[in-house]
Amino acid sequence: MKNLLVKEGNDLLVSRMQQTENTQFEVKGCVIGGEKTIVIAGPCAIESEDILKETAFKVRASGASMLRGGAYKPRTSPYSFQGHGEEGLKILARVGQDMNMPVVTEVMDSEDIGLVAEYSDILQVGARNMYNYSLLKKLGRLDIPVVLKRGLSATIEEWLLAAEYIMAGGNCRVVLCERGIRSSETWTRNTIDLSAVALVKELSHLPVMVDPSHGTGVRSLVTPMSKAAIAAGADVLMIEVHPNPEKALSDGPQSLTPRGFSQLMREIEPIARACGRRVK
Amino acid sequence: MKNLLVKEGNDLLVSRMQQTENTQFEVKGCVIGGEKTIVIAGPCAIESEDILKETAFKVRASGASMLRGGAYKPRTSPYSFQGHGEEGLKILARVGQDMNMPVVTEVMDSEDIGLVAEYSDILQVGARNMYNYSLLKKLGRLDIPVVLKRGLSATIEEWLLAAEYIMAGGNCRVVLCERGIRSSETWTRNTIDLSAVALVKELSHLPVMVDPSHGTGVRSLVTPMSKAAIAAGADVLMIEVHPNPEKALSDGPQSLTPRGFSQLMREIEPIARACGRRVK
Amino acid sequence: MKNLLVKEGNDLLVSRMQQTENTQFEVKGCVIGGEKTIVIAGPCAIESEDILKETAFKVRASGASMLRGGAYKPRTSPYSFQGHGEEGLKILARVGQDMNMPVVTEVMDSEDIGLVAEYSDILQVGARNMYNYSLLKKLGRLDIPVVLKRGLSATIEEWLLAAEYIMAGGNCRVVLCERGIRSSETWTRNTIDLSAVALVKELSHLPVMVDPSHGTGVRSLVTPMSKAAIAAGADVLMIEVHPNPEKALSDGPQSLTPRGFSQLMREIEPIARACGRRVK
Amino acid sequence: MKNLLVKEGNDLLVSRMQQTENTQFEVKGCVIGGEKTIVIAGPCAIESEDILKETAFKVRASGASMLRGGAYKPRTSPYSFQGHGEEGLKILARVGQDMNMPVVTEVMDSEDIGLVAEYSDILQVGARNMYNYSLLKKLGRLDIPVVLKRGLSATIEEWLLAAEYIMAGGNCRVVLCERGIRSSETWTRNTIDLSAVALVKELSHLPVMVDPSHGTGVRSLVTPMSKAAIAAGADVLMIEVHPNPEKALSDGPQSLTPRGFSQLMREIEPIARACGRRVK
Repeated sequence: MKNLLVKEGNDLLVSRMQQTENTQFEVKGCVIGGEKTIVIAGPCAIESEDILKETAFKVRASGASMLRGGAYKPRTSPYSFQGHGEEGLKILARVGQDMNMPVVTEVMDSEDIGLVAEYSDILQVGARNMYNYSLLKKLGRLDIPVVLKRGLSATIEEWLLAAEYIMAGGNCRVVLCERGIRSSETWTRNTIDLSAVALVKELSHLPVMVDPSHGTGVRSLVTPMSKAAIAAGADVLMIEVHPNPEKALSDGPQSLTPRGFSQLMREIEPIARACGRRVK
Repeated sequence: MKNLLVKEGNDLLVSRMQQTENTQFEVKGCVIGGEKTIVIAGPCAIESEDILKETAFKVRASGASMLRGGAYKPRTSPYSFQGHGEEGLKILARVGQDMNMPVVTEVMDSEDIGLVAEYSDILQVGARNMYNYSLLKKLGRLDIPVVLKRGLSATIEEWLLAAEYIMAGGNCRVVLCERGIRSSETWTRNTIDLSAVALVKELSHLPVMVDPSHGTGVRSLVTPMSKAAIAAGADVLMIEVHPNPEKALSDGPQSLTPRGFSQLMREIEPIARACGRRVK
Repeated sequence: MKNLLVKEGNDLLVSRMQQTENTQFEVKGCVIGGEKTIVIAGPCAIESEDILKETAFKVRASGASMLRGGAYKPRTSPYSFQGHGEEGLKILARVGQDMNMPVVTEVMDSEDIGLVAEYSDILQVGARNMYNYSLLKKLGRLDIPVVLKRGLSATIEEWLLAAEYIMAGGNCRVVLCERGIRSSETWTRNTIDLSAVALVKELSHLPVMVDPSHGTGVRSLVTPMSKAAIAAGADVLMIEVHPNPEKALSDGPQSLTPRGFSQLMREIEPIARACGRRVK
Repeated sequence: MKNLLVKEGNDLLVSRMQQTENTQFEVKGCVIGGEKTIVIAGPCAIESEDILKETAFKVRASGASMLRGGAYKPRTSPYSFQGHGEEGLKILARVGQDMNMPVVTEVMDSEDIGLVAEYSDILQVGARNMYNYSLLKKLGRLDIPVVLKRGLSATIEEWLLAAEYIMAGGNCRVVLCERGIRSSETWTRNTIDLSAVALVKELSHLPVMVDPSHGTGVRSLVTPMSKAAIAAGADVLMIEVHPNPEKALSDGPQSLTPRGFSQLMREIEPIARACGRRVK
């Protein structure tokens, strides 16, 4: 198993054979891949400055370290809300600064990388763009951390090789994010593959994130799957929180309320400690 | 979500709407579905009395509550080792008695139910027989606990309705076992669906088991996935242990050594405690 | 590819390396695996003698060679119609005799084999029982043709080895039936895998059937997929026909009317001829 | 079923409710979506002018209407051959002109659209980019036909909505290409979903292409699946042909030799005629 990540006799950059110790890096005072389990929270889409601010204030109070929010949304239908674009980026940056929280947002188009990087501390590649190798190559030439979500039905090998596309360009600050894969199950939106988390921690030195909100698509499953993710070895969690999920412009059914998020933080804390880590 | 398990206006027997409190039952002093997380361990197949005895002795010493071992093996090829049949059952019963451990074994054929029930404390329906409704109906008329594994690509609905087949006959001592479903991932044998564990705990009152050995097919993933399973809410774990995995007649690559099992028991203990449960 | 079906250096009985020429056999005057594409038609379940007679009369007039109908139905819920059992078998046998059509029906339980074999000319193993190796072994000891449906997510290897279970017992009259596998597509009930048909025809000498009714679950797709199945190499088609699909006790949405079936027969005829075969 | 493609009461542009008759359009004298089944052939990647010329000469002689070849290759590993880029495009354009064949090639990056469109008559969006909505939106503003491959595990709904992204911009010359989806089968590279072809022909007016080379990944299955694709209703086939598949820089195992392609053309001709169409 240890020899899987080899090309023509050489260990890949993502491989733990290439680098034994875990990759750690700091983003504005937040250490990713370290002892502390990092929790990133926020709404699916940036809807307004007020909503984002309220969310940020509350999730920070509960212990979230970073703020998330989408300005560019990859929606299945061209007629669905596509995000507020640059306006959304500006809101995100302002709120992040006000709250002193690093921010994460998705970049969908290689032409937008410069713009998004101006406002965000970490760039996220969504599941739908994991195979967008042009985008990955360009991100590889930048000096900004990248969250790489696993593709909708991507194998672990394809996912690690997608990270290799980024690292081959010189950018080694990559976080691998498991967000559920497609299966024949229909009562959950996707099937979270936590064995992939454990396996990637074994095969690679990169930090691993889990997104139980997209991974399940079901609000009541977010907390138990967050606990399970930490137990499986995840370094980072990404949780969708919205002050009023029923009115969210996207992904309401999987969003926690700030109160639900606070409960989640309380529940994961003893699990993290049982794994020799901490949440706060 | 709560209303999923309804037929013509009536809550199904498996549904938590039908019975609010968790189902608990005792098997020779072992309480399933209670505060204590039950760990069942043993070899995939019963190979010889010596091997089984050695395994039982060691896993009991590490804290396993029950002993598993297959006498009838559903193998993909008719030319692979098919299990020792009745001879195996006798060995299992003897070792269980000697060690004072309840035993679990698989029944594959409705004609064998009486025979297997004579020697085993719990009957297991394998993933390949989850849709074998004739077998399920007959098990429903018995007074013996049944472990019902989820089918290879069964939906949660089909799995719960398979349990309903057993319960409709009057037998309510059913344990649901998640053992991984098929996906397009190839580095693991199956994809363990822990969100199914959390969801079944929400929708049903039945106890839930996880089999990380078959679920991953990879030895090094058994311990992290056991921890994750407990964090997701599992009541029971089933772990393959063999004194000499390299020489096992089946499923060697996913079997722990007794030493590895002892390590697993040490690692899951703090997780169970963090979830308000205990392992020993 | 040709060497896939080997165990310990020996070609399996299912393998074309073991037998170069196609397996052909006759069932009451119907040659399966020969020049003529055999079409089996009838309702999903045997509901009443009148309905079955009407269906048989009409599908025979359109060119169907054999009659199908289920007396034992593997339903997802224990509370759904389970089939008329022995009463249904008797109806099927009578109608088959009256119409001079060989009949096919499913056997679900190894204890029922003798009973079902008394009334049916071919025994069908459903997709849910493909891994029921006890059942397969018993069928291997009989002298009656068996239709073996591919499991819901079975690999081609598992399917061919399931046939090997039957052949290893001495019964070589096996027909392999592709009926769709599970995928993440939701607008069709299953995903018919016609490349499996072409591959099995290459690797094995056994005749291959396609069931586009269960394979798609959508009435309007049955005819185009029947044409495609013949073009891919199928020897036999199995088509659900009901005089009044809206009132069918099971699988109405995928059943053709007798008129729709007659249209299907007209449309597949030129395709069969283009493949060097004939339908009538 | 007919009402699936509706948003807020309006039929989508892709829907057959919006436009009853089939979409047809001409590319340099080749009519796509018309009576004639169009066959596009050529190597996976453009390796050299000599190889492409030889291939083009031979496939045209056998009846291919268009030439394919990749200049930008989306490879799983960053260290695999990535295509010759602009140099490859120039070769493709020159050979297409010399042979009087329209050419098709893939565009991977929204920044390259202008460049690729300069050299190619049709732009192809690969399966890995089906969800790349930025790319699709930009293609929607152009006046050049687009082949849109179905994503690796995309549902039919997502695929049609991806086409809607292009059409919503004003570009209505879209061809939908089925190229196999992921399943748990491992003996074929992907599982070609021909029921999707039949269903899309029913639901949409757009022409449908099938790529049996990528769809199966197995040379011997390309011809039977081409026949089946035409029988299921495909308007266009795309076939990988290489003069020396063993030495191909990518996808050798699924490429036909020119001689194999000539045989394919002979075998599909009677099927096309049986469907009221023609190949030459």
